[in-house]
Amino acid sequence: MSWQLTAADLPDLARGATLLGTGGGGDPYIGKMLVERVLGDREITILDPVEIRDDLFVIPTAQMGAPTVMVEKIPAGTEPSLALRTLEEHLGRSADATMPIECGGINSMIPLIVAAESGLPVVDADGMGRAFPELSMETFAVYGVHGSPLALAGERGEQVIIDTGDDDRQMEWLARGITIRLGGVGHIAEYAMSGADVRRTAVPRTISMALALGRAIRLAREEHRSPFTAIADTLATTLYPHLRELFVGKVVDVERRTTDGFAKGRATIAGLDGSGATLEIAFQNENLTAHRDGRLVAIVPDLICVVDHETAEPITTEGLRYGQRVRVLGISTPEMMRTPEALATFGPVAFGLDEQFVPVEVLAAS
Amino acid sequence: MSWQLTAADLPDLARGATLLGTGGGGDPYIGKMLVERVLGDREITILDPVEIRDDLFVIPTAQMGAPTVMVEKIPAGTEPSLALRTLEEHLGRSADATMPIECGGINSMIPLIVAAESGLPVVDADGMGRAFPELSMETFAVYGVHGSPLALAGERGEQVIIDTGDDDRQMEWLARGITIRLGGVGHIAEYAMSGADVRRTAVPRTISMALALGRAIRLAREEHRSPFTAIADTLATTLYPHLRELFVGKVVDVERRTTDGFAKGRATIAGLDGSGATLEIAFQNENLTAHRDGRLVAIVPDLICVVDHETAEPITTEGLRYGQRVRVLGISTPEMMRTPEALATFGPVAFGLDEQFVPVEVLAAS
Repeated sequence: MSWQLTAADLPDLARGATLLGTGGGGDPYIGKMLVERVLGDREITILDPVEIRDDLFVIPTAQMGAPTVMVEKIPAGTEPSLALRTLEEHLGRSADATMPIECGGINSMIPLIVAAESGLPVVDADGMGRAFPELSMETFAVYGVHGSPLALAGERGEQVIIDTGDDDRQMEWLARGITIRLGGVGHIAEYAMSGADVRRTAVPRTISMALALGRAIRLAREEHRSPFTAIADTLATTLYPHLRELFVGKVVDVERRTTDGFAKGRATIAGLDGSGATLEIAFQNENLTAHRDGRLVAIVPDLICVVDHETAEPITTEGLRYGQRVRVLGISTPEMMRTPEALATFGPVAFGLDEQFVPVEVLAAS
Repeated sequence: MSWQLTAADLPDLARGATLLGTGGGGDPYIGKMLVERVLGDREITILDPVEIRDDLFVIPTAQMGAPTVMVEKIPAGTEPSLALRTLEEHLGRSADATMPIECGGINSMIPLIVAAESGLPVVDADGMGRAFPELSMETFAVYGVHGSPLALAGERGEQVIIDTGDDDRQMEWLARGITIRLGGVGHIAEYAMSGADVRRTAVPRTISMALALGRAIRLAREEHRSPFTAIADTLATTLYPHLRELFVGKVVDVERRTTDGFAKGRATIAGLDGSGATLEIAFQNENLTAHRDGRLVAIVPDLICVVDHETAEPITTEGLRYGQRVRVLGISTPEMMRTPEALATFGPVAFGLDEQFVPVEVLAAS
């Protein structure tokens, strides 16, 4: 069912989107402030993907760039709408709705900025079901909707259109080059599609899931219940049913560099029980693998989320600090993200990893 | 007067365009082969800029990239026409003619490839009056016609449109980023303008001048006359009336690196008369300055051309070799390229040089 989102929902949505960002995706709190500023006391209509018309014309909107840069370079707020208009003009057709390409991190908020400015509704779905570092890592692309033409807008009004046909990796490569030359952040509109395409290729109800997760964590804290039980209960009714606690410990090392427009590195977490156990997480913007004492316990595209060990507040890769006490959660992704075609696009091989994908519910049996 | 160009003209045009390339501009001999292949025994109509209709719609076409890469990465030949079509579709208007943006080097040939494929005529004018390393260094821009929107095509059918409003330097910066990610070479259509704009902003009759220079050198050789006198006689009737022989000597050192998409470096030429005199040339794709024994004798935008000391065959920066015996010629540029606005765009300050522009006919009095 379609529903109305107000500014009061944004803190919970930001918290849930940070969890789904799996360490990356950019800070949604900056995006939240931009939405609040534009939205005021109005509402945004969120469309349930099951109910939309087959011929609804949807243009997703997003930000691209390294999360480490996004924190320092706050957008003016008008760039996402400029990207949308640029693509509308290029296609000679106006969008009926916008949508996230990525429900984790700041890209949960960018379509809301566009909606607040334009009055367009937002479809409750996305193409990553989490956050990924590259524009080609989309269920849209896996199931036959391609990103081109892509429109990219810069803070000085620059407008760029990139069309690489059905080669979404070349689109990503060229758009990343422009983003780097714009100072590390660009705003984009891409993967224009019909309502029927959304139903066939998008991960459904991920905005409402992010909102439900953020709300469940907050309510559990307020009512002195376990936020971890609240997260598990919330996920149990979604396409992400399996939650595993992979580790509890203290951050003892973080190695991070921004290179080629990405934040790459690894974090080491030492156990609190004195057993000498450690968990090592490798990331490229988002967390890619978790090894416990050298044994793989979760791997992309399943979600590896680092959260505060008591409050369950999600911690991004940029937020990791020596001495933090954290829990590391593994969450199963929907089946449509685990098919052979999907794994070829955003599974271990797409990140140059040697390990095969094994579901987190198998690797870390409860 | 408009005239017909045939394949028989191409060797002379290539020689003249190499001279006007002032060391850079990319090798026109590769472009010549591409024109020959497409043109066969047909003709290309060259339009005199003085005669064209005010409302003629002209879209210039060109290649961009480092000359050192262009020599190794020969284009398929269809990219320039794809760039033109991309811009036509974006603007919703078909070109009546194409035109060079740069009469020196390979960009003398690229519009001829488009003309041979499409049947369009080519306007006998350009925006550099020679070769320059950046897309923003155009008399078009100096006199109020801007490059955006620019269309860029890659060898795998990639199509990119860049619109930076009236900021031609930002257009260059973003297009250069795409070109680097395409492997070092891209093909472009930009600076779309009317016939009236051509008359107001372009350097006129530079294709016919390049052809006349190349032909004069060849005929002089065939008839055992001095090719240097032939060059001087040809220039005397153009907007480039002053020719100065700056130096005769032997190449003793060449320092060259391809960096940020440009070929940068310097060449040292030692005198043959035993006096110990040397000439040093600094270049960024094209030759920028010539110093004789430390004293400036020619500076951008005037032309600094290195040619074989006997045959007057022009030698590009990539073609410079230890031991070559060369003459270095200084040629005055048209007055419209020496105004304060023009010098701000492609004079010494635009290349970060400390020296002021002084005309070659003043620096090297005859």
